Amino acid sequence: MANEISRHILSFVLVLLLLSETVSFDWKKPCKSFVLYQHNIAYDSDNTDNATSATILNPLGLGNFLFGKFVIFDNPVTMDQNYLSKPVARAQGFFFYNKKSNFNIWVACTLVFNSTQHKGTFTIMDANPIMEPTRDLSIVGGTGDFFMTRGIATFKSDLIQGSKYFRLKMDINL
Amino acid sequence: MANEISRHILSFVLVLLLLSETVSFDWKKPCKSFVLYQHNIAYDSDNTDNATSATILNPLGLGNFLFGKFVIFDNPVTMDQNYLSKPVARAQGFFFYNKKSNFNIWVACTLVFNSTQHKGTFTIMDANPIMEPTRDLSIVGGTGDFFMTRGIATFKSDLIQGSKYFRLKMDINL
Amino acid sequence: MANEISRHILSFVLVLLLLSETVSFDWKKPCKSFVLYQHNIAYDSDNTDNATSATILNPLGLGNFLFGKFVIFDNPVTMDQNYLSKPVARAQGFFFYNKKSNFNIWVACTLVFNSTQHKGTFTIMDANPIMEPTRDLSIVGGTGDFFMTRGIATFKSDLIQGSKYFRLKMDINL
Repeated sequence: MANEISRHILSFVLVLLLLSETVSFDWKKPCKSFVLYQHNIAYDSDNTDNATSATILNPLGLGNFLFGKFVIFDNPVTMDQNYLSKPVARAQGFFFYNKKSNFNIWVACTLVFNSTQHKGTFTIMDANPIMEPTRDLSIVGGTGDFFMTRGIATFKSDLIQGSKYFRLKMDINL
Repeated sequence: MANEISRHILSFVLVLLLLSETVSFDWKKPCKSFVLYQHNIAYDSDNTDNATSATILNPLGLGNFLFGKFVIFDNPVTMDQNYLSKPVARAQGFFFYNKKSNFNIWVACTLVFNSTQHKGTFTIMDANPIMEPTRDLSIVGGTGDFFMTRGIATFKSDLIQGSKYFRLKMDINL
Repeated sequence: MANEISRHILSFVLVLLLLSETVSFDWKKPCKSFVLYQHNIAYDSDNTDNATSATILNPLGLGNFLFGKFVIFDNPVTMDQNYLSKPVARAQGFFFYNKKSNFNIWVACTLVFNSTQHKGTFTIMDANPIMEPTRDLSIVGGTGDFFMTRGIATFKSDLIQGSKYFRLKMDINL
């Protein structure tokens, strides 16, 4: 009898331990991973139809690495590298160059999903040392399907065509 | 005897289960809800006394929806719709227009409370598609009474008077 | 026999209670505290070698407190007050003046660590009423050694030399 009870209670205790595990890891463990591509076509005053971003302030002349150049954007985001693929989201935000000694930017950017599959946003904000092969940027909040999300976006410059176009590979871990 | 023990332990187990529930929900469940109104009076170089916001960069001419217009503000926040009511907070931050195809802004904004009732701040940051009837924006952090707060602010354009004044209804869920 | 079982189970239960405690406090309790100094040397078009920050937009003339002045920076961060000490991090970001009635700024800033001791970033974002002796600002996210960190940075203007130099004491509590 006592043995039976103890067995029942042990199973209870094990369930509880499992529950505690779940609780303690819930908010730490990345639970969603996916890859997205962001496409940035710079406005050159002659490509209104195609442009997705524009410089609103030109470099200051402090050093040789565009210090002070300020860009805002509404870039299409796709599942593959082709910028003509159907966008799954828009990346909206701004970045600026802020280093005298190298190309380096600081960026804040919201991914906006508005389809039947995903509705909601999450926002990335961090320094982005663009000369590094990959950079980790923090994801600080979200809404809708990404309610209160947090995590890391790993950026990789996938293709750069002068100052006209760049494609950013974004590994998202929420 | 064994039965008595088992009853005691079951009650312990139930208490633990309840505790686990508390733990797992603590950081998910919104715990505070309130409604605030933000009032934005645009500076027109002739209303220094009343102005609460100012355009620091004019639109670029990319599309017809003010792309590139950049505004910073220190707006009064009230409990009711009357902008002459005693402010309970200030909303400090910036926004800019960033879409070619529609009126759309990106905003970062801190609500600053400094009264006997509330001291502290929390910060909202997200895309804000102002043509939608309501928009959810993420709350990403806070200080003082709002220490490490997170949540959602639901914005509604409550009143718009040309480019001179707008009133924003903000449903805050922390 | 039953007593032995009950003793075993009670110890299990105690362990669980301790676990729950750990779980519920893990993400609330500040776990790291340290003090850093940030040094800002304003660009005056004649100090390219030393400058660490630059004004990208001048004040508008709305009030007498620099409303609209917009600054971006890449400031060295040291462990002591000497700005010639070996930097342990860079502070990258921007701030702008946004009040008609007093000196007040809004700031977003990432501390970038890239040494053998620390790799990673965390980002501070908040209103910063610089005339107050100390100000609490929220830390909203991080990467690397500061993965998903949150907390408070308490700023104190440690030294101000006109518009040329200021040193900021930052008490960090993660």
